[in-house]
Amino acid sequence: MGQDIRRVRRERMYQGTIVDIYRDSMEFSNGNTEEWDYIHHKGAAAVVPVMEDGRIIMVRQYRSALDRFTLELPAGALNYADEEGKVCSARELEEETGYRALSMEWLLTLRTTVALCNERIEIYAARDLVPTNQHLDPNEFVNVEMYTLGELKEMIFTGKIEDGKTVAGILAYALKYKEAE
Amino acid sequence: MGQDIRRVRRERMYQGTIVDIYRDSMEFSNGNTEEWDYIHHKGAAAVVPVMEDGRIIMVRQYRSALDRFTLELPAGALNYADEEGKVCSARELEEETGYRALSMEWLLTLRTTVALCNERIEIYAARDLVPTNQHLDPNEFVNVEMYTLGELKEMIFTGKIEDGKTVAGILAYALKYKEAE
Repeated sequence: MGQDIRRVRRERMYQGTIVDIYRDSMEFSNGNTEEWDYIHHKGAAAVVPVMEDGRIIMVRQYRSALDRFTLELPAGALNYADEEGKVCSARELEEETGYRALSMEWLLTLRTTVALCNERIEIYAARDLVPTNQHLDPNEFVNVEMYTLGELKEMIFTGKIEDGKTVAGILAYALKYKEAE
Repeated sequence: MGQDIRRVRRERMYQGTIVDIYRDSMEFSNGNTEEWDYIHHKGAAAVVPVMEDGRIIMVRQYRSALDRFTLELPAGALNYADEEGKVCSARELEEETGYRALSMEWLLTLRTTVALCNERIEIYAARDLVPTNQHLDPNEFVNVEMYTLGELKEMIFTGKIEDGKTVAGILAYALKYKEAE
């Protein structure tokens, strides 16, 4: 199967603020050719921050792509392509929620949109949280909210939470730790 | 919080083969402005196809965006923007794997990349599968493979499966049905 498809050219078509858009020219073993979209993203990290009482710290923010507010795990883009996901997610946790984690454990790695984008999100479980200070970027507006695992699972299974990294991170945490709800 | 950010313009910058790329001009309550990327996608659907013995039917295919093969749930883009996810995922299941589902149940709805894309994936659990015929598109090359839920969970928790819709769909199925592994 490995020889059935090959990329013969990749051309940058547009440079966005976060992503770059390319056109991939593909050649197939049957002689056909096709053009595929490719979106280059430098990567991101997210965190499932668990309070001592089991509640999970979430952020609510406006997403222009969906024209609405979403409830999500704290997350952010890497500062540079090789930044460690653990470092990035710890920073985003503290900036967005005002909690620092004394313990961070790798939970999952996600590729958000394999058909056309290389974005990779490392997701960590954060525990032993100590309150510090929220320090948002100047143009960042988020509400911090806390929910039990049971409440979050209910929101996922009724379609109230749809964000991919959040759904995967919460369900992975629930399955891996099978904690009391 | 709702008044802190508003989009004042959306301009199309590039038309891809599957997605269109826009530049959103955002205005903040502090007087700042920013440009955000927005990627328009018409939507997709995926399916967790469960055999009578509990094994799940997966597809392996080449993903140019990752420069490698990935193991994924059967899935595909909607034929048109308003196509029902149930119809799309049933069609993709049969085309890619050669199984028709007599029972389809909604499991999850995902937004793959809320920071910059509106892509929505409806995920269904498919049961009562009957063999028909695989009929791939001319330029589609997939291998059909079957795994137990335990094997898939193991691959997710060791980072061997990273595809977002697949991770979320498998974990949701595992949690919702808590089936024997």
